[in-house]
Amino acid sequence: MFHHVKELQFDARVSGPDPRFAKLLLEQFGGGNGELKAAMQYFVQAFGVRQSYPDKYDLLMDIATEEFSHLEIVGATITMLLAGVNGELKNAVEKSSLNKIMRGNGSRDELVQEALTDPHFLVHSGGGPVVSDSAGIPWSGTYVNSNGDLTVDLRSNIAAESRAKITYEYLLQFTDDAHVKESLTFLMTREIAHFQMFAAALEDIRPNFPPGILQGDPRYTHTYFNMSNGVSARGPWNQGQGPWPSGEQWAYIEHPAKHVHETDGLRKEPIQGSSHRPEELHKMEEKLAKERSQQVKKTVPDGTNRWTDYKEPVSSR
Amino acid sequence: MFHHVKELQFDARVSGPDPRFAKLLLEQFGGGNGELKAAMQYFVQAFGVRQSYPDKYDLLMDIATEEFSHLEIVGATITMLLAGVNGELKNAVEKSSLNKIMRGNGSRDELVQEALTDPHFLVHSGGGPVVSDSAGIPWSGTYVNSNGDLTVDLRSNIAAESRAKITYEYLLQFTDDAHVKESLTFLMTREIAHFQMFAAALEDIRPNFPPGILQGDPRYTHTYFNMSNGVSARGPWNQGQGPWPSGEQWAYIEHPAKHVHETDGLRKEPIQGSSHRPEELHKMEEKLAKERSQQVKKTVPDGTNRWTDYKEPVSSR
Amino acid sequence: MFHHVKELQFDARVSGPDPRFAKLLLEQFGGGNGELKAAMQYFVQAFGVRQSYPDKYDLLMDIATEEFSHLEIVGATITMLLAGVNGELKNAVEKSSLNKIMRGNGSRDELVQEALTDPHFLVHSGGGPVVSDSAGIPWSGTYVNSNGDLTVDLRSNIAAESRAKITYEYLLQFTDDAHVKESLTFLMTREIAHFQMFAAALEDIRPNFPPGILQGDPRYTHTYFNMSNGVSARGPWNQGQGPWPSGEQWAYIEHPAKHVHETDGLRKEPIQGSSHRPEELHKMEEKLAKERSQQVKKTVPDGTNRWTDYKEPVSSR
Amino acid sequence: MFHHVKELQFDARVSGPDPRFAKLLLEQFGGGNGELKAAMQYFVQAFGVRQSYPDKYDLLMDIATEEFSHLEIVGATITMLLAGVNGELKNAVEKSSLNKIMRGNGSRDELVQEALTDPHFLVHSGGGPVVSDSAGIPWSGTYVNSNGDLTVDLRSNIAAESRAKITYEYLLQFTDDAHVKESLTFLMTREIAHFQMFAAALEDIRPNFPPGILQGDPRYTHTYFNMSNGVSARGPWNQGQGPWPSGEQWAYIEHPAKHVHETDGLRKEPIQGSSHRPEELHKMEEKLAKERSQQVKKTVPDGTNRWTDYKEPVSSR
Amino acid sequence: MFHHVKELQFDARVSGPDPRFAKLLLEQFGGGNGELKAAMQYFVQAFGVRQSYPDKYDLLMDIATEEFSHLEIVGATITMLLAGVNGELKNAVEKSSLNKIMRGNGSRDELVQEALTDPHFLVHSGGGPVVSDSAGIPWSGTYVNSNGDLTVDLRSNIAAESRAKITYEYLLQFTDDAHVKESLTFLMTREIAHFQMFAAALEDIRPNFPPGILQGDPRYTHTYFNMSNGVSARGPWNQGQGPWPSGEQWAYIEHPAKHVHETDGLRKEPIQGSSHRPEELHKMEEKLAKERSQQVKKTVPDGTNRWTDYKEPVSSR
Amino acid sequence: MFHHVKELQFDARVSGPDPRFAKLLLEQFGGGNGELKAAMQYFVQAFGVRQSYPDKYDLLMDIATEEFSHLEIVGATITMLLAGVNGELKNAVEKSSLNKIMRGNGSRDELVQEALTDPHFLVHSGGGPVVSDSAGIPWSGTYVNSNGDLTVDLRSNIAAESRAKITYEYLLQFTDDAHVKESLTFLMTREIAHFQMFAAALEDIRPNFPPGILQGDPRYTHTYFNMSNGVSARGPWNQGQGPWPSGEQWAYIEHPAKHVHETDGLRKEPIQGSSHRPEELHKMEEKLAKERSQQVKKTVPDGTNRWTDYKEPVSSR
Repeated sequence: MFHHVKELQFDARVSGPDPRFAKLLLEQFGGGNGELKAAMQYFVQAFGVRQSYPDKYDLLMDIATEEFSHLEIVGATITMLLAGVNGELKNAVEKSSLNKIMRGNGSRDELVQEALTDPHFLVHSGGGPVVSDSAGIPWSGTYVNSNGDLTVDLRSNIAAESRAKITYEYLLQFTDDAHVKESLTFLMTREIAHFQMFAAALEDIRPNFPPGILQGDPRYTHTYFNMSNGVSARGPWNQGQGPWPSGEQWAYIEHPAKHVHETDGLRKEPIQGSSHRPEELHKMEEKLAKERSQQVKKTVPDGTNRWTDYKEPVSSR
Repeated sequence: MFHHVKELQFDARVSGPDPRFAKLLLEQFGGGNGELKAAMQYFVQAFGVRQSYPDKYDLLMDIATEEFSHLEIVGATITMLLAGVNGELKNAVEKSSLNKIMRGNGSRDELVQEALTDPHFLVHSGGGPVVSDSAGIPWSGTYVNSNGDLTVDLRSNIAAESRAKITYEYLLQFTDDAHVKESLTFLMTREIAHFQMFAAALEDIRPNFPPGILQGDPRYTHTYFNMSNGVSARGPWNQGQGPWPSGEQWAYIEHPAKHVHETDGLRKEPIQGSSHRPEELHKMEEKLAKERSQQVKKTVPDGTNRWTDYKEPVSSR
Repeated sequence: MFHHVKELQFDARVSGPDPRFAKLLLEQFGGGNGELKAAMQYFVQAFGVRQSYPDKYDLLMDIATEEFSHLEIVGATITMLLAGVNGELKNAVEKSSLNKIMRGNGSRDELVQEALTDPHFLVHSGGGPVVSDSAGIPWSGTYVNSNGDLTVDLRSNIAAESRAKITYEYLLQFTDDAHVKESLTFLMTREIAHFQMFAAALEDIRPNFPPGILQGDPRYTHTYFNMSNGVSARGPWNQGQGPWPSGEQWAYIEHPAKHVHETDGLRKEPIQGSSHRPEELHKMEEKLAKERSQQVKKTVPDGTNRWTDYKEPVSSR
Repeated sequence: MFHHVKELQFDARVSGPDPRFAKLLLEQFGGGNGELKAAMQYFVQAFGVRQSYPDKYDLLMDIATEEFSHLEIVGATITMLLAGVNGELKNAVEKSSLNKIMRGNGSRDELVQEALTDPHFLVHSGGGPVVSDSAGIPWSGTYVNSNGDLTVDLRSNIAAESRAKITYEYLLQFTDDAHVKESLTFLMTREIAHFQMFAAALEDIRPNFPPGILQGDPRYTHTYFNMSNGVSARGPWNQGQGPWPSGEQWAYIEHPAKHVHETDGLRKEPIQGSSHRPEELHKMEEKLAKERSQQVKKTVPDGTNRWTDYKEPVSSR
Repeated sequence: MFHHVKELQFDARVSGPDPRFAKLLLEQFGGGNGELKAAMQYFVQAFGVRQSYPDKYDLLMDIATEEFSHLEIVGATITMLLAGVNGELKNAVEKSSLNKIMRGNGSRDELVQEALTDPHFLVHSGGGPVVSDSAGIPWSGTYVNSNGDLTVDLRSNIAAESRAKITYEYLLQFTDDAHVKESLTFLMTREIAHFQMFAAALEDIRPNFPPGILQGDPRYTHTYFNMSNGVSARGPWNQGQGPWPSGEQWAYIEHPAKHVHETDGLRKEPIQGSSHRPEELHKMEEKLAKERSQQVKKTVPDGTNRWTDYKEPVSSR
Repeated sequence: MFHHVKELQFDARVSGPDPRFAKLLLEQFGGGNGELKAAMQYFVQAFGVRQSYPDKYDLLMDIATEEFSHLEIVGATITMLLAGVNGELKNAVEKSSLNKIMRGNGSRDELVQEALTDPHFLVHSGGGPVVSDSAGIPWSGTYVNSNGDLTVDLRSNIAAESRAKITYEYLLQFTDDAHVKESLTFLMTREIAHFQMFAAALEDIRPNFPPGILQGDPRYTHTYFNMSNGVSARGPWNQGQGPWPSGEQWAYIEHPAKHVHETDGLRKEPIQGSSHRPEELHKMEEKLAKERSQQVKKTVPDGTNRWTDYKEPVSSR
């Protein structure tokens, strides 16, 4: 269960209203790379590993909870940046200044500020945050990546933290408010810290590549298809040793259409580059399948599943 | 900020796996009337009233936090109902029983169970919850109703709790698992309790009708348009005194098209039914506009807005 | 079936073009709390009660039809506010003034007006309405709340009318056009009238609380969980008698985490506050289940279902 | 404004409940090619032509109104096909047969029927229609095509009627209920009739090709790019005279990549196939632009726009 | 398989940055009538006719491939119009000019330009294209119309090309950049050319009306329902011979509600206007059903389906 | 521009129809981790780096083109798995076997097969693929992650390939068709190969952490907040040296709420764990900002931007 502490995790302040920036900041409230996405992603992933990786469960739930706390910081900041809008809207009788501004009688600064304001602030939320991004797109459950394999999920999280980090970096360039900058810098820094936590957790699982159980077919793991005409760029991603041990290397297919035709649609493709034999790869699959499926127990002994029983004593390390 | 307590708010258990019911239960996880919607709705509304109604802020945030805790109960239950699916999927090498079941070699119960299973459990989430409803529709930010007026928001909440309650009532009819029924009954009951909390908070605000500041035009507030042919149903919603003081009553327009034509598109409509005069209604508007816009202060004295300063001492009552 | 009367229900006029306000007004055309949502919500709900509550069927269909008529008023107003845009776009050969305005050679008023214009008006709908809201979000079928229980549906409608009303109140603050204000005031007032019709219909059903058939578990109906730290707000929603008869009252849980732990996850929670016994609640459930399920007949006598037969003679009252 | 006639346009009946087919039939209720899409598409298009093509306004609004009436037929049929579900759900106390069926104790027919039932019928709408398609996807405002040019809109309508027709044809193959087949055949036939009405209206506008005002660049109107390798299909779409007058013909580009390179990215492409000169095409553009932009008057004489004034006397013909 | 040629199909250029127009141009990148929609629509349709209409398969895949190439032109143009934004964002340390512009210190032109800029360019894509339309709405799979009947699909394509054409026509009015105009004119012209290719392919199929196999019920194919009051427009769509052979004509129902009542909900409707007898229509259905279902072979002879075998030798013609 | 080669990249075959698996396989056609998402993601990212990283442009476009080719393989396989459905639907006159199967007269295998079939195959696409996932959710432009920073984008790609790989692994467990398994294994293996190409490209950029230009605030980079109660898991993600050089380490905050209170909302937080000084971090930022913003030139020399000019000679390496 959750408990709410009335203080924010970071003492967020603003120097004054700025509806324009409030709109941009929605990107981190209801956006695809924002705090709600992060919180829900780690929260949902956590259910699946409570039994199999209780230490990672704790990590995921800690960061999920911190992201919910960041969501609150972002929402509070947006609310403060919109200060005045709700009051003006309640002042519904006399010709309000809102209308005057919208009509173009205000100063240039006001004009621009309003011009970029989300119409939802004006006629929908009455000056409060909405669960949408900076362009008004509503948050979607599809943003959450949780795929039932921890080495996949942690990579999704590393990418998610990278995107959240760059979003804060971009946002920092559209405000001059020193208080807001402080909060954004704190939040951006935490994405960097989370990145490294997830990377460390991924390193802690061995093997962690390829994701899942099944190994690749060695006929196709080392092959690069040059799908474009003209001068081709070569680099460590399609020439030389690649990430493999000595003796292995990339196989470069210069003319894929011709090659596909000659190999009967790649069916007659020989193993190139790789020194792995199908038999050893299959043994690895059997070993992993056994280990990892056993890690996920079907039921607890007494025939009743209780969530409490899913929680193993955390390893002492 | 939030804090996570590893125990669930209610000791959720299941008797055994039931992927079929897990799918239905998603309605309360990622559905339009589910726990995430409720949690986010009250959380978002809370920002707007932290300054103007600090006691209602506390109420909204308490219930939001409880709904996040319910979301966790629902997610944990779904995870337990899916027990085994993730393990089978990790057992990727030998011909898994999943495939056999899907092929139709299993028992009749298995057939039906699988037939109703969400394909996302099988090839997307790997046996974990998804942020979607029972039909697979992803959660959307548009589910959250927060409109910057507390008498509106509390009515949205009363309706939301009603819908959540009936959803649990329907769900209870599709499981025989006594443990699951216990959890659902607890969750359903809390929706009833929340309904009454929101109703009490709405009563606490006076006046609370009509929502907002502006009063209706008395020419159109008491009029019922009979928009259908044939025998017309009459009842307290279109005849008699209605909700008004003695002397007022519903005005029933038997033939709207004819009436609209005769009144120049309702422009020449006289005041009927209502005893309110435009002048007194306008005075009410001025009074309310003054009171409620003042309640929302634009900035705190020292020129810097801090979230902490938004929080007034809660009235002793 | 429907019939179209070429006159509008209200004689809508505009003083001149105003693409900027046309964009905001989309909130009531294709928005989540707009006229299409209202029309479709009552229309869809009506099907379900044609047999069980024929008088409420008539009410729902009358108001649905009026909301479709309001949708037409809003669409006509948007079209008039966009007057000129379509003609300019057809003037595709010579350097049109549209482009000049967009380039910044126009007056300040024009600048601001255009700056807030929906790009869909310019390159998609060619100067006509779109089925989206003020921020461009397309209307979604998820906006419609219809849940198969009339006491739930009427509460959804009361909340929907509240949100529609406040939206018109906000919109009124962004236009100076007296003609447009007249139309908006008419439309806003009708939301108030509909609110009271739905409230009267809800009162007409007894009992109407809790929604549905199942009563709450008395151990959890009267309990308030204080989910936050610090000073807690107390009010009629968590202290005193609440909405119950004398002798009942709210039970306040000061420290939920501790309490949950001590009651074995609330399983050992005693009945507090409530004077209801499970047995009497169960009797109420049986009575309601019998009455209300009988109200919905499965088939008409002759083995063929005709929509016409669903329509009972409306009670005389 | 609209008026509701309590009789359906077609006397819809069903032989008995069939939740399975009710789910499929949703495709025509809330689907992308269904009745709501059609009704809203013609309704929205109508606003834009009320002034410029008053006769086509009448046509569009007549068909829109008929489609709303068809939406009602489909909704009524779905409701009758779901007969019993709502009653069962209200029978919430005793172990309902719904649950038994879902558990697999029922007959094979029941099993299959339930297996294909939309979960939304069970735990969301309580046995009523939802504004979604057969796969549960909510209706979206993006389904509506209205682009401010009548020759474009009528073509969108012809295509929409074609898709609606084939959908009814497919649906007819999934029911044995003679009553339902009758209703579907009526509805399918009306799509054919509407197709021909829209085609006749399109013929009535001259010229109607290309859509809009601007003519194509004659260097690129008659060219076919063979974008695939291997044996190429030739037919009236890329060889011979095409739709043009004698002397014109398709120009076939055998090797587009080479051709693009040789013509400096098509900049040096000569006019091929076409006998049109840029000058005459430009004259046509000027003529059309003048005619059609004048057809859309900006404002009515007295400086006030009234919707009523938009409606010209319909041409006598 | 696809191959990428590094040159664009048309040598796209821009005179300089214009983020404002880049936003509008998104309509053709990720919009409902844009290049991605067209490419995916024809690509998806092609699968279904590879076996039954191999010549049309070639046509659909050629145009799909050309539309992917157009998508690349549009994306490249948007990227060039946004030149500088990405560089400014990377200049994250010193107070960037982006912020100054946003603050209102720039020139009037800059103000307007920024005011219309998509916030996604600034804080999400970092100055690159997004898969959304000009209003920020993400591309949706529902845009693709592919319905398993080629006479339906080709009509969908004719309508799609019409909408794409008018969108380019509108876009051309919002830029003064001669280079951009050249590219847009090329792209617009290709929509006209594709329109005529699809029309020719549709003509090549006989019969092609009504779409699909089933013929309409002759009682309802020639009937026009006058669903509105007042003066009714008459034209070739509801009077005279219509599209039929001599002796047939439109049947005009002046008062539909009365008519429906008198014909027992249209059940007693006689055949009017049409000279077709049900028997001959049914024979036509049987003939078409036999021909067209045979055209779609279920499996190839040896019991294995290979995509290659689906490809018949293209008819010589 | 693109060119289409009529052969598939892999010679895809199926042993026979299997509509059930066709539905699951949609996950890779129109799903959030499927081939269209991958193709569009790399395609969109490529535009942004054509100038700054021409070698990575080539890599991204090669893989994008391969993913489009994979999309074709998946679509062809789905079409072959649905063989017969389209033919049956065209056989619209006699009582088709489709209906019999749906009615429950077929064998058990048929029952299950149909029960899991996507209704869209039956009444929407007529037996062809749809641009949706296995649960019917339409593909969305929000699936594409492209954020204007290559170190972010490559991490998004590594995560995307991980998710696509695990999806193929899950899919392989739901089919027994050896031909289909071959195709899926090929496609799965290519995701592994792409993963390593993207990882190599990321390694090739130095520095690549943190993503973007701005460095984290050293007060918050090394801190772990223990946001949960009870026994806390410790591991390399919150204790010990972490990823840093000797002398640095994680700082563990045992009681965040208390800590936040004591540090005035973290404002008085000292630097812990990190040995970085703000000054050196700022110097790094200046260096990176200069280098990377220069890498993105605003315009080419002659004042005209041509896409061709964006393409630098690929470095020889």
